[in-house]
Amino acid sequence: MRMVDIIESKKMGNALTGEEIKFFVSKYTDGTIPDYQAAALLMAIRLNGMTPEETACLTMEMAHSGEQSDLSSIEGIKVDKHSTGGVGDKTTLVVGPIVAACGVPVAKMSGRGLGHTGGTLDKLESIPGFQISIPTKEFFDIVNEVGFSLIGQTGNLAPADKKLYALRDVTATVDSLPLIAASIMSKKIASGADAIVLDVKMGSGAFMKTREDARELAQEMVSIGEHAKRNCVALITNMDRPLGYAIGNSLEVMEAVDTLQGRGPEDFTQLCIHLAANMLFLAKKGTMEECFAQAQTALENKSAYKKLTEMVAAQGGDCSVLSDFTKFPQADHTYTVTAPRSGWVASMETQQCGVAAMILGAGRAQKEDPIDYSAGIVLSVKPGDKVEKGEPLAVLYTNLPDSIGQARQLLLDAITISDAPSEVKPLIYERVTASDIEPVLDLSSCS
Amino acid sequence: MRMVDIIESKKMGNALTGEEIKFFVSKYTDGTIPDYQAAALLMAIRLNGMTPEETACLTMEMAHSGEQSDLSSIEGIKVDKHSTGGVGDKTTLVVGPIVAACGVPVAKMSGRGLGHTGGTLDKLESIPGFQISIPTKEFFDIVNEVGFSLIGQTGNLAPADKKLYALRDVTATVDSLPLIAASIMSKKIASGADAIVLDVKMGSGAFMKTREDARELAQEMVSIGEHAKRNCVALITNMDRPLGYAIGNSLEVMEAVDTLQGRGPEDFTQLCIHLAANMLFLAKKGTMEECFAQAQTALENKSAYKKLTEMVAAQGGDCSVLSDFTKFPQADHTYTVTAPRSGWVASMETQQCGVAAMILGAGRAQKEDPIDYSAGIVLSVKPGDKVEKGEPLAVLYTNLPDSIGQARQLLLDAITISDAPSEVKPLIYERVTASDIEPVLDLSSCS
Repeated sequence: MRMVDIIESKKMGNALTGEEIKFFVSKYTDGTIPDYQAAALLMAIRLNGMTPEETACLTMEMAHSGEQSDLSSIEGIKVDKHSTGGVGDKTTLVVGPIVAACGVPVAKMSGRGLGHTGGTLDKLESIPGFQISIPTKEFFDIVNEVGFSLIGQTGNLAPADKKLYALRDVTATVDSLPLIAASIMSKKIASGADAIVLDVKMGSGAFMKTREDARELAQEMVSIGEHAKRNCVALITNMDRPLGYAIGNSLEVMEAVDTLQGRGPEDFTQLCIHLAANMLFLAKKGTMEECFAQAQTALENKSAYKKLTEMVAAQGGDCSVLSDFTKFPQADHTYTVTAPRSGWVASMETQQCGVAAMILGAGRAQKEDPIDYSAGIVLSVKPGDKVEKGEPLAVLYTNLPDSIGQARQLLLDAITISDAPSEVKPLIYERVTASDIEPVLDLSSCS
Repeated sequence: MRMVDIIESKKMGNALTGEEIKFFVSKYTDGTIPDYQAAALLMAIRLNGMTPEETACLTMEMAHSGEQSDLSSIEGIKVDKHSTGGVGDKTTLVVGPIVAACGVPVAKMSGRGLGHTGGTLDKLESIPGFQISIPTKEFFDIVNEVGFSLIGQTGNLAPADKKLYALRDVTATVDSLPLIAASIMSKKIASGADAIVLDVKMGSGAFMKTREDARELAQEMVSIGEHAKRNCVALITNMDRPLGYAIGNSLEVMEAVDTLQGRGPEDFTQLCIHLAANMLFLAKKGTMEECFAQAQTALENKSAYKKLTEMVAAQGGDCSVLSDFTKFPQADHTYTVTAPRSGWVASMETQQCGVAAMILGAGRAQKEDPIDYSAGIVLSVKPGDKVEKGEPLAVLYTNLPDSIGQARQLLLDAITISDAPSEVKPLIYERVTASDIEPVLDLSSCS
């Protein structure tokens, strides 16, 4: 088998066989196939696509390209959650505690945020003392005792994905639906959870800009999950505006705590309850209605909040910041962006809001850049809100005073104010489950 | 400017700007842009195409990526010829002498054959003593004195093409029309000729399988020539059967000599006269009719044959082999392939005939493989011929007796014999000149 023939076949629009995909993944991971041949194949995949069978095969080969987590020492059905990424997405900090409070263990391994704002690891690290690198044994112990732990990814999980992702990044092949699905699902499968809830973001702040693309990605991932015997549910959710109001690491932790205390933003609270209920459902805690009620109760009776404090304490974090936000390191400079005119907030260029937060210090332009945990943005408005000229649109937090001008302008450009109220899009568009998927892929030739 | 943005743009189906193409070619040639990014761009070009403007721009940047031959010390209008490659293509050995005999200098620099059978350099080297590496000054002297010289490519001509061609070869991006056109024309332009006749092969033994593709390639190249101020004419010619009867290096030299002696195969003779007449026309030796007559005369009065002997002598070759073929090194083994049934030769899988010759030792499977000059095939029939069962179809020549079985089978599979005569396709399909091309490309932004 020769790599050039595999590239040729995909170039001509054929479906690759399981053997061809296995050859490519294993030989690329071990360095036999050079980057330039992989790059040509990635572009051919980006332009000619992959069948669901090919995508599932690719995923399984990538999942099996390295170590696989063994979570068997954690009791019960382990349910994981994955978000395709957006701006202000701090759901794990709320959903994890809710699910744990309902008696389902959440053992989460997370990668670093590569987007404009930090990832969940960065957010947690904004809590003084919080440790994300702890031994596996201790990680399992915390999950068994507290019900929820979140650490940095350990071990050599899905090395094929790591290598391919780095290559896609520099060859303009990130935006390929089958490659996105395979990348996400290979890591989730290698991480060892029994079931997975997928939060597929759609809108101006997400990879998927259209309903069709989002649905296709959701279906693809749920179908891969079926093949891998991991029960999956996907929610297609709104990323046409930042989630909640806060963007930036400690700012988002505060908003998560507010939410666990019952005073969080309505959209964010609702999304967390939906995601948690679906996780409970996959963990067989009852009907969807029952799971919904359990999630809501865990939030209302503060048992979820208690789980967060226990988990922070177990991982060495200073819990006192959770009840007294002034103990978080504070940004030196704050600046209020005001509405240039009266009207209704019609839309927000969500990604631009994320870029503005990054410029203020909240995210990384490059992988090695440091993050300023205190920096970011707290929006004062959402699409649909009425504002008067001069009223605040957002407050900027930063230790880089020179960045304020640019961030302010980006934010003003990102927020459209119109003369009349416009339709506000729903928070959750659609729920995709295995029953929505075409039945049974034939994957006899792949791992 | 970032390479990833250039890839992104081509991926999305945009036309690249002159600045982007210049950036890519110069930075790839100097090693700043890595192979993997170039490979992704090549695949995006293969699948999304290039406009004539982009192709012309790419060609000029590649032509200017290294040294450029200065042929000004050769008197007169220098006309070059290029064939897109086929099986049994020994036209240069006949066309060069004809054109030189008519008073137009032919200073030809040639690359090594990469196809199944040797290139023109290999064919000439089958003449004992013939030198293809001679100093430039001497090369010019021979052209000025004899009118015709052919040497191996010297200097660092179009290094971008060399690097890109090697990459295309291993990334399944050879078969891209704009990349083929740019590759051919960049070398021709860097080689310094004033005018170029292009022999675009079409059929089972050529890259271009259809009339549309062949015409598009021809038009693209003629149009590039216009831009580069090189007068170009392209002939689209039949490669549905090997050219002439001989395939293999010294076997083809003998057939070329036969042709210069007036006893060559009809198709091959006609093609040589057409190509030579077009070269004379571009050298302003008269109307097409007058040029035709001159070419025919040079063949009939043996002045072209005389030119070949002078040129071979000037480059150190043993001329006596040209008049006594038995002085060529002879293959130890010959084998006659006979017709398995009676009927009419309907078609020939030309490329398979080339592969059969390669297996017998006449060509290279890999760049470094040695060539056996005496090996090859002399066909006994052409499409349209009637054969009786048991009559010869071809004679195989080799020093590798073990290869005979496989070569014989390949040849039998390649030649279809049918019950009734079928239509024989024309030798020359079409002539493409600058007047057939859409006028004036806007290339203001490229070199």
